[in-house]
Amino acid sequence: MTTRQDCLALDAQDPLAPLREQFELPDGVTYLDGNSLGVLPRTAAARVADVVTREWGQDLIRSWNTAGWIDMPQRIGNKIARLIGAGENEVVVADSTSVNLFKVLTAALNLQRTDAPQRKVIVSERHNFPTDLYIAESLARERGLVLRLVEPDEIPAHLDDDLAVLMLTHVNYRTGRMHDMPALTRQAQEAGALVIWDLAHSAGAVPVDLNAAGADFAVGCGYKYLNGGPGAPAFAWAHRSHTEVMDAEQLWQPLSGWLGHAAPFEFTPDYRPAAGVNRFICGTPPVISMAALECGVDTMLAAQPLGGMTALRRKSIALTDTFIALVEQRCAGHGLTLQTPRDASIRGSQVSFAREEGGYAIMQALIARGVIGDFRAPDILRFGFTPLYVRFIDVWNSVEHLAQVLDGGEWREARFNQRAAVT
Amino acid sequence: MTTRQDCLALDAQDPLAPLREQFELPDGVTYLDGNSLGVLPRTAAARVADVVTREWGQDLIRSWNTAGWIDMPQRIGNKIARLIGAGENEVVVADSTSVNLFKVLTAALNLQRTDAPQRKVIVSERHNFPTDLYIAESLARERGLVLRLVEPDEIPAHLDDDLAVLMLTHVNYRTGRMHDMPALTRQAQEAGALVIWDLAHSAGAVPVDLNAAGADFAVGCGYKYLNGGPGAPAFAWAHRSHTEVMDAEQLWQPLSGWLGHAAPFEFTPDYRPAAGVNRFICGTPPVISMAALECGVDTMLAAQPLGGMTALRRKSIALTDTFIALVEQRCAGHGLTLQTPRDASIRGSQVSFAREEGGYAIMQALIARGVIGDFRAPDILRFGFTPLYVRFIDVWNSVEHLAQVLDGGEWREARFNQRAAVT
Repeated sequence: MTTRQDCLALDAQDPLAPLREQFELPDGVTYLDGNSLGVLPRTAAARVADVVTREWGQDLIRSWNTAGWIDMPQRIGNKIARLIGAGENEVVVADSTSVNLFKVLTAALNLQRTDAPQRKVIVSERHNFPTDLYIAESLARERGLVLRLVEPDEIPAHLDDDLAVLMLTHVNYRTGRMHDMPALTRQAQEAGALVIWDLAHSAGAVPVDLNAAGADFAVGCGYKYLNGGPGAPAFAWAHRSHTEVMDAEQLWQPLSGWLGHAAPFEFTPDYRPAAGVNRFICGTPPVISMAALECGVDTMLAAQPLGGMTALRRKSIALTDTFIALVEQRCAGHGLTLQTPRDASIRGSQVSFAREEGGYAIMQALIARGVIGDFRAPDILRFGFTPLYVRFIDVWNSVEHLAQVLDGGEWREARFNQRAAVT
Repeated sequence: MTTRQDCLALDAQDPLAPLREQFELPDGVTYLDGNSLGVLPRTAAARVADVVTREWGQDLIRSWNTAGWIDMPQRIGNKIARLIGAGENEVVVADSTSVNLFKVLTAALNLQRTDAPQRKVIVSERHNFPTDLYIAESLARERGLVLRLVEPDEIPAHLDDDLAVLMLTHVNYRTGRMHDMPALTRQAQEAGALVIWDLAHSAGAVPVDLNAAGADFAVGCGYKYLNGGPGAPAFAWAHRSHTEVMDAEQLWQPLSGWLGHAAPFEFTPDYRPAAGVNRFICGTPPVISMAALECGVDTMLAAQPLGGMTALRRKSIALTDTFIALVEQRCAGHGLTLQTPRDASIRGSQVSFAREEGGYAIMQALIARGVIGDFRAPDILRFGFTPLYVRFIDVWNSVEHLAQVLDGGEWREARFNQRAAVT
């Protein structure tokens, strides 16, 4: 049985421990919600202040050139590329995950409309994050396609001649279950489909190699494991085999804003998509939020000399294994049911437990004690373990508090049962 | 003939002069580019720092509730509403102008597809800002519609039985010519069309009354006259008569992201649009950039006790009248041709001159002297006059520099002829 001393010893031996120094972490808080909003990089406040006071305030419009604002989508995209197995100039930062998903899903559907118009089905996971489903629902409706939602184990049975696009989130936001990206990509493509991966809970959390998997398109989120700040812009990737098709008819994404144009400052009336992945840029990027995102991505890249995603993954598995074991020891009999795979090879960097009753209030009681996880309706207690800054002693302390909340029944108090807008 | 003393006297009498104190303006700069990127509000640095260090850094995920992040799209939208003749809860801040235009144009086309499917034409202005045309081109192509681009004077002739949507930018980005919003809206609607206005160069620049005009949809930009910071999020408005139609089939906008859902935190798999204009929200907003935008919008609202848009408009016209008169006096014979209407009633808050040769280099030479305007290909020298902070002495000084640049021919130097990415 793991003891508090064991946890302290694991921290003492952790080669990644110095990475925690990159962050401003509030006193008295055990933060297990980096899968919802990552923490503040130490560099971000000064960098954002410089963008505001000098680049905007003093240099004004000139900063589009002199401060490199105009290159941010590509510059930050290239940094993210190193975390997801993408190549140079294959990733752009732009808009939100939802908007980017709309772009890549439309592009994929357009390719299929030309190449295989008889394919009328989009398959996704029933418990995929809702925004992904809503975007797919919208496009399916507009184009008279079928959006088929299935359980993870049912996916292979739906990779057939009707399938146009398989659209999955690599790591499920509720359960933390991770799909086998290379295998599903291969199987779907062998069936003639295109494959889109949403990396919202993967980028910076688990090893991803988009090019090795041969995926078609991907999108992802800047404000979770990448620590890019609240509502940080998202990213989009497309396989070179698609973006090198320069014919706009074949790879058309409909959000044809001016910064995705081949020559935006020529102000010509006709749209001509930019080369490569740049055509997935649309309007003017929110520069201040982009600057914070870059600081966040840099905290991930700082792990590369220490073993990068391989080392982070090793620690992530150790953290989540320890958390699962401790909860099952210390909170036995309290009705918590593990939702996350026990098999670490198909687990993301989070652990979720379901509880029939009181999940929201239990999480509120934990938060009142300084242990921040989150609740996902209807019944999921979700804990994120971001190996850049979460320690084994944090795992110990959070389980200690969870056990006390459950043993003492404090979550039954009215103040913990009042729902807030965001949980 | 206006003298330097006249300009100083006009500044001394200007009741709006104190509003300039709201901004951090760099020394030695005459900034006539607030129609491209507004200047830094004094409050923004501290506000953004607080969002970063306290709201994000200390309060983390809780700030979605405790700091009101979740309400930002509506809260800032309600402030912008007061500047454009919109009602409470009729405006949301979200995404970029390009993305918002895609939403409202699709919504309008969907309404027409139901009500008048024989209407197959979108009319816009040939020299509308390209991103507007690119978005319309994309939708026209997808739906087999015709995008018809015409000159401003030709618009009335195209308001016929084929017209689905009239989509115009209220004030043209090149010429500064302002359309008659009430008249064109009425004429187009009488012909059975819906009308969309892009307020990029209007919001905060000229009086706008969307509800009085009875327009159908509008979008606008946060980083120009609203001083919201580089790439600040944009806004969207829809007439209540449309958003009160709750049937999603009738008013469908395809960027159906989770924050435009009626109950985003119920995480249900089916999309159900939020009430009213909230359905035009899509993904998670870039909070840091949103906070800066709110500071910018507040600088506009600070003008309301001093007469608001009416007083700002009076000053704007005086500034642009003075600039036109001085340029035509001091720079006569240098080949500058006024592109902006001489009639102030159809002029926005900018003045543009065309010059057959050297426009780019002339602007670079002016910028080197600290007078910042911009160049718009192929031949436009563009000067923005934002009455919140531009003074009459700035008008005088900028014309003085322009005359010197032209008289002395310094713009012919090689260093002024090297093109940068953004101009």
